[in-house]
Order: sequence, then structure tokens, then C-alpha cells
Amino acid sequence: MGVVRLTLAYDGTGFRGWARQRDQRTVEGVLSDALSRFLGSSGGAVAPGTGSGVRLSVAGRTDAGVHSRGQVASFVFGEPVDLERLQRAVNGMLAPEVVVLDARAAPEGFHARYWATAREYRYRIDVGPWPDPFEARYVWHRPGELSVPRMRAAAGALIGEHDFASFGRPHTPGGPTVRRLERLAIARAGSRIDLTARASAFLHQMVRTMVGTIVAVGEGRIEPGEVRAILAARDRHRAKGRLAPARGLTLERVMYGRRPASPR
Amino acid sequence: MGVVRLTLAYDGTGFRGWARQRDQRTVEGVLSDALSRFLGSSGGAVAPGTGSGVRLSVAGRTDAGVHSRGQVASFVFGEPVDLERLQRAVNGMLAPEVVVLDARAAPEGFHARYWATAREYRYRIDVGPWPDPFEARYVWHRPGELSVPRMRAAAGALIGEHDFASFGRPHTPGGPTVRRLERLAIARAGSRIDLTARASAFLHQMVRTMVGTIVAVGEGRIEPGEVRAILAARDRHRAKGRLAPARGLTLERVMYGRRPASPR
Repeated sequence: MGVVRLTLAYDGTGFRGWARQRDQRTVEGVLSDALSRFLGSSGGAVAPGTGSGVRLSVAGRTDAGVHSRGQVASFVFGEPVDLERLQRAVNGMLAPEVVVLDARAAPEGFHARYWATAREYRYRIDVGPWPDPFEARYVWHRPGELSVPRMRAAAGALIGEHDFASFGRPHTPGGPTVRRLERLAIARAGSRIDLTARASAFLHQMVRTMVGTIVAVGEGRIEPGEVRAILAARDRHRAKGRLAPARGLTLERVMYGRRPASPR
Repeated sequence: MGVVRLTLAYDGTGFRGWARQRDQRTVEGVLSDALSRFLGSSGGAVAPGTGSGVRLSVAGRTDAGVHSRGQVASFVFGEPVDLERLQRAVNGMLAPEVVVLDARAAPEGFHARYWATAREYRYRIDVGPWPDPFEARYVWHRPGELSVPRMRAAAGALIGEHDFASFGRPHTPGGPTVRRLERLAIARAGSRIDLTARASAFLHQMVRTMVGTIVAVGEGRIEPGEVRAILAARDRHRAKGRLAPARGLTLERVMYGRRPASPR
């Protein structure tokens, strides 16, 4: 028995998100199928109880159209695995749309989701008049100026440990909605405004709802101070309709400690 | 009568190159159709003799799969044109795949091809083990180390005015094959090796054949000195089979003087 840890980059444009769904093309679906094909043909049988594919755990369950440069997934396998061959074989099936950047043995008990201590996402906005054909799939093209100082004031209201119920739903219905937002930085370069968000974990659609709200502040449609009121309301309807498009969002990296960081 | 000058960015992936061809999707084809739709509906009729669309002249007749960040095209139109509306309308039809970055009135007699004094192309190579999903359409992923000093020695043999018959065909059969290569610079950053080539004009497939040959030198398959011999041979077969893929090539910009630079 061993645990395999994979670091993944993918262009989310052609996928209905990470999580496997019947009759939908998802990243987990194509990846676990590819892993099963490799593991089945490499001598070992697929581990019992995995159903039709390898059972993957994942650090960030990205939504439809969301990308990754540093997603981490893991799985348990009953026999020794040649990780170099695994990486070559899976990339041969899936690259360049999905790329295994790294495949390594992880400590016993490792679990990509429960051991993660933090996730970092980047949201890319282009405020220039016309889209860049080479970035159109990865950037939210939203022509028209935004005030970065106002956006930074809005972001400041969100940093820290808060109940983020206004900004997203827990992945498990009824689960906790308190999260610790460690970082929410806004960088401007030319017509690009990039937001970097890091937290122990995020609620479903939390980054995109925060970005949509911060952009509304940058546009002058709401005041920076109102963001504090939206947060305090703990009501999903307060920030509703301010969901930034999926294409601008990328899971950049996942941080790990030496043991589980969250309960199962 | 006025001349309109357009600066264009496009992702060449989905096109059979610039030049209009029957039953093929080309950049010129979609652009001249879009211009005709706008000009036809904006009050003026399409200029006589333009056939089914506006007749465009262009600085660089890019091949199938080749991209542009600064292509320049021009056309003559018999009536005043609202250039802001033209840009908005055409981008509304074609962006983000093809984007009009700039539309302006040009001096009388301006011709995007004959007035150009230089063209600058960039060829992007990634030598890392795995492709980057976000650049796969715009970069030649060619895993395995290349010697940049050897590549620079090879490039040095090509700079200057030479008969480049070994590296490409003239766009007009039987035309001259002497070109002045002003610049051929090689920059390395991480796993990326980018080549920038500037010349008064290029032969058909000249940049990609030069890149393929320089890469062969970087791999150690041929010696830098041999590049001089290939050039001296003036024989297309000498460099044959070393055509780098179209996807890595982008026309970056076109330089203009104040009058025609080349004869019609």
C-alpha cells in the first residue's frame, strides 16, 4: 500500500469542473480513467473498491471553466508504482490539456484534501478596451477603468478570520462557513489587474464572489465600507449576482504540512 | 477616397493562414467579410472591383497556424469611414480570435505591404519536460536541452544581407531571394527559448526554416559552421525537413516609413 501524490496543471475551459459526474467531461473523470488504464496495464489490478476508476482525493474542487497550475490530488494503490512511467503515460494520454507536473510517493495516510494547510488562487482581469486573443481563455476581459485603491480597501475588509456565508456555500451542505483569509493582494500591470487569494480553505464560489464584489467597488457601484456590511450579514443574497466569470480563476498552488490539517 | 490602416492580433490556430482561399477559413476571409458587412450597412457601398469582400493588402502573409500580435492590413474605401464604429463592429463579430487593436486613416497611397520597412517575428520554444496547458497553442513544446551558445553561433551566420534561397521560397514565384536579416536574437528564461527575427521582408517559411536549423545546431546534430554552408548552397533541399511547427511563430510588429519601401 502506498500513497501517490500528483501535482496537476490544466486548462479548465473544456471541463465541467473537477468532480466526476455522470455523462459530463470532468478533470477527475479523464484523469482517473487515464490512471486506471495505466495501472491496469502495468501489472497491478486497480485497488479494490475504486469502482470504475482510481479514487482520487483533491485539494481544490475547481468549478466548470476554472483552471489550475498547481492542483494536488492523491490516491492509494495496493502495489508499488513506477511513478516516472505513470507520469509519462498519463501525460501521453491527456497533455497538453491536463498535465501531471509531478508524481511522487507521499507519507502513509497522506490525503490531498485533509493535509492541505492553504490554497492559493489567482484571478486575472483585463480592463483594456479589447481582449488579448492569447489570454482570452484565462482572463476576464472587462473593459473600463477600475480604481485599484478602492479595490484594495474592499479587500482589506475581507482579510482575516470571518464567517464568509455571504460569499459562498460550504462544499458539504450545512458545514461550517468560517474561513481564515490569509492574503488578498491586488497587483496592477498595464491593463491587467490580478487578485491573489490565499486561505486555509475556501467556500464554494468564494473567490469569484469576492472578486465580483471587489470589482463592483472598483467601479464605484458600491462603497468599500459596504463590503464589511455584506460580510456581517452572513447572507448569500447580499453578494449575489456579483459572481466573476470562471475563466479568470486559476488554482495556483496548495501548501502542505507534515500531518493532517483538517478533520475528515 | 481614403486609406484605412488596421493593426491586428489573432490566434492563428483555427485558420488556414492569412490569405483568402475558397472553402477555407482564413484570417483575410473572415476579416474582409466582417468589413464588408460593416461598410455595406454603414451607408457606403463596398468599393467597386472588390469582389465579394473588401480588398485588403497585408504586411505579412502568415501561414496556417501562425499568430499575430501586430499584423498590419490596409484597404481603400470610397467614402469617409467612422473608424471607432468600424473597430467596435468588427471586434464584435470576430474577437477574441481576431482583434482590431487599432484602426486609423493612413496617408494617400499607403499600402500595408509596400510601405513596410521591416517585419519582426518571434518564435517561442519550451524545452521543459511537459507542455504548459496555457501556452500550448502558441509555443513549440520540444522537450530536451538545447545549447544556447551554439544556437547563437548559428544565428550569427545568418544575420546580414544574404541570398536566403536555402531557407525559403519567394512569395512570388521566380522573385528575388536576397533579404537583409537585421536581427536574430535568442533569449533564454527558464525552460523557454525565444528567437526574435527582424528583416526588411522574409521569404515564405523563412523564419520557421531558420528556427528548425538553429534548433538542430542547439541539439548538436549539425555544427554552427554548417549553417554558413547551407546558406551558401542557395538550395532549399539543404535545410529541408527542418521546418519548425507553425504554432510557435507570431508576427509581433511591422515597421513603416513615410513612403513606399519596396516596388510594387
